[in-house]
Amino acid sequence: MSERVLSIQSHVSFGYVGGKAAVFPLQCLGYDVDVVNSVNFSNHSGYGRFGGSKATPEDLIKIFNLMEQNGLLSPSRLLTGYIPGGEALTVIAQLAKKLRSNNPDLIYLLDPVLGDSGKLYVSPDVVPIYRSILPLATIITPNWFEVETLTEVRLTNVDALRRALAILHEQYRVPHVVVSSMPLVPPVEAGLPAILRSPKSSEDLICISSSFIPDHSKRANPPELSSVFVLRFPCLPGYFSGVGDLFSALVLAHYRPSLPTLPQSAPPTQTPLSIATSHALSKTFSILEFTSAQLLSLPEEERTLTDDEADGADPERKVKRMRGRELKLIQGQDILRGERPIETRWMAAWEDFWHSK
Amino acid sequence: MSERVLSIQSHVSFGYVGGKAAVFPLQCLGYDVDVVNSVNFSNHSGYGRFGGSKATPEDLIKIFNLMEQNGLLSPSRLLTGYIPGGEALTVIAQLAKKLRSNNPDLIYLLDPVLGDSGKLYVSPDVVPIYRSILPLATIITPNWFEVETLTEVRLTNVDALRRALAILHEQYRVPHVVVSSMPLVPPVEAGLPAILRSPKSSEDLICISSSFIPDHSKRANPPELSSVFVLRFPCLPGYFSGVGDLFSALVLAHYRPSLPTLPQSAPPTQTPLSIATSHALSKTFSILEFTSAQLLSLPEEERTLTDDEADGADPERKVKRMRGRELKLIQGQDILRGERPIETRWMAAWEDFWHSK
Repeated sequence: MSERVLSIQSHVSFGYVGGKAAVFPLQCLGYDVDVVNSVNFSNHSGYGRFGGSKATPEDLIKIFNLMEQNGLLSPSRLLTGYIPGGEALTVIAQLAKKLRSNNPDLIYLLDPVLGDSGKLYVSPDVVPIYRSILPLATIITPNWFEVETLTEVRLTNVDALRRALAILHEQYRVPHVVVSSMPLVPPVEAGLPAILRSPKSSEDLICISSSFIPDHSKRANPPELSSVFVLRFPCLPGYFSGVGDLFSALVLAHYRPSLPTLPQSAPPTQTPLSIATSHALSKTFSILEFTSAQLLSLPEEERTLTDDEADGADPERKVKRMRGRELKLIQGQDILRGERPIETRWMAAWEDFWHSK
Repeated sequence: MSERVLSIQSHVSFGYVGGKAAVFPLQCLGYDVDVVNSVNFSNHSGYGRFGGSKATPEDLIKIFNLMEQNGLLSPSRLLTGYIPGGEALTVIAQLAKKLRSNNPDLIYLLDPVLGDSGKLYVSPDVVPIYRSILPLATIITPNWFEVETLTEVRLTNVDALRRALAILHEQYRVPHVVVSSMPLVPPVEAGLPAILRSPKSSEDLICISSSFIPDHSKRANPPELSSVFVLRFPCLPGYFSGVGDLFSALVLAHYRPSLPTLPQSAPPTQTPLSIATSHALSKTFSILEFTSAQLLSLPEEERTLTDDEADGADPERKVKRMRGRELKLIQGQDILRGERPIETRWMAAWEDFWHSK
């Protein structure tokens, strides 16, 4: 029997962010997806001009109640992304609580969409509400800035990263944390496993997965709190929207609670989370490479780089760039389905994470 | 370069009707789909309990205007389905007019969703608005009842069918008409091409495609107004929701303005519309067969037949049945993509349609 995901995200008519970036990949991978739209907008905010309507908290409650009355509210998985406003988020929190209590095995992937690159997208009063929902999640997929915002720890070195992960696992009881992307600053690079310290580009990013070890006191001395894996990958030039939404959906799609048989090409030590993250990151990266390659065939005016000054002088400049940078999910759907051969970028165990200096 | 469809339909969180039945198949077949939700409902109306919010005419105008300002409103194809209410429909009509005047090659598939089996789903004042939009359409896909409602001709025999098609082609200037399904009443069966008059079940349905011949006066004597094709197929037991929405999306997906090279198995005489309709009907029928087959594995209480009396006494009876009868689009996606071998049911030319008694 196939599994059913309830996905609560923003909807845009044109382009691929929020639900438009998450639902199709999940469907391609065999999931029935129940889709609740937190907003119905024309396009993503990066175009400068955008808008439409938002679901009110009452709209959301009505839809969830009707689904429940009809026996349609028993998904095996829950996915939540960008939810604008604290009231709507509180409704989602109540729903997550109900689904979790109805089904202790519910796999809830919470993408705490708060901001990026040092800037909040949401109003600051949403942050404590997100913190209150964290204990309901099975997996969270914050970027580095969202980890900093949720934990109030600046991720300047490996020790800070340890403290932040400890807060998420211990204080907020999140079993599985994926830090979707984090710049590789020198103090973090110095703490990486030796194999990843090769002299690659300083523009590289890392992705980290961390799965809580319930009886960690017994595991080692000094104890390890979680199994940490890390992947280093190059940063592709320019900004693409919807990447985090696609990545989170793919982590959820590839996550299996028990460890599957691994292909021979995989490193022998893996966790269910590191496997899901490896597949999600590999596919997301391939979609980005494919989208970038398609960009080269566009007229020059549609592949300008971000330049706030030039964009300010000519809003159309930004709009044209945005159109060209929409993820090519349709043309690259065989990547999503695993039917086009791509390099699987396997995460590496960060063995001494909890002990390194 | 891949094509882009603007799809304006109802959205349900759970299940597969409206946009949920149309968008995924179009995406699987390589179309970028811009999705505007005319409603955001919990589930389809067949469950008895349903609801959510409707896009107001102002919401729709706002989204279309923002898309236009951002240069995101130049789809090569337009698909419209269920639009509740005359005001919203008027907004869609204005949009269709603009898209058509911007792009004379726009392929607009209009599914005039009015009702079925002799009952209107919409308020009667919507009917004249649909009539006013017909001249903008490239293809329409009414069922027999919608043809009757639009043309005010009762489809009791072949002569009535001729009159109805003449009205749609000549008075409303629709180039391509697909009558998606029509019961095979004896006076119609008697007029069918001989090959289709074999003693099959009287429960059979027919699907008709009719493509206008612009210079029909020259074609034959007496003149033929259109190339008519017909397909006879068995009626599967019970009612499935979203079938018309899936079928219309597949007709649009498979329609190519110029005649492609046909496989050797196809009858030699075809039109672009008869080919698209053959593929759409074959895939829709396979999805229905697949969904029916899956039904057999459900508990008996989830596969009851329609019985208004029993349903009235126990509303849950209907709800359980509805859940089991949701189209299995995800599990059957290889049918949609043409990767699972299915029987292609080719339409047959109805050679003497315009001359038969």
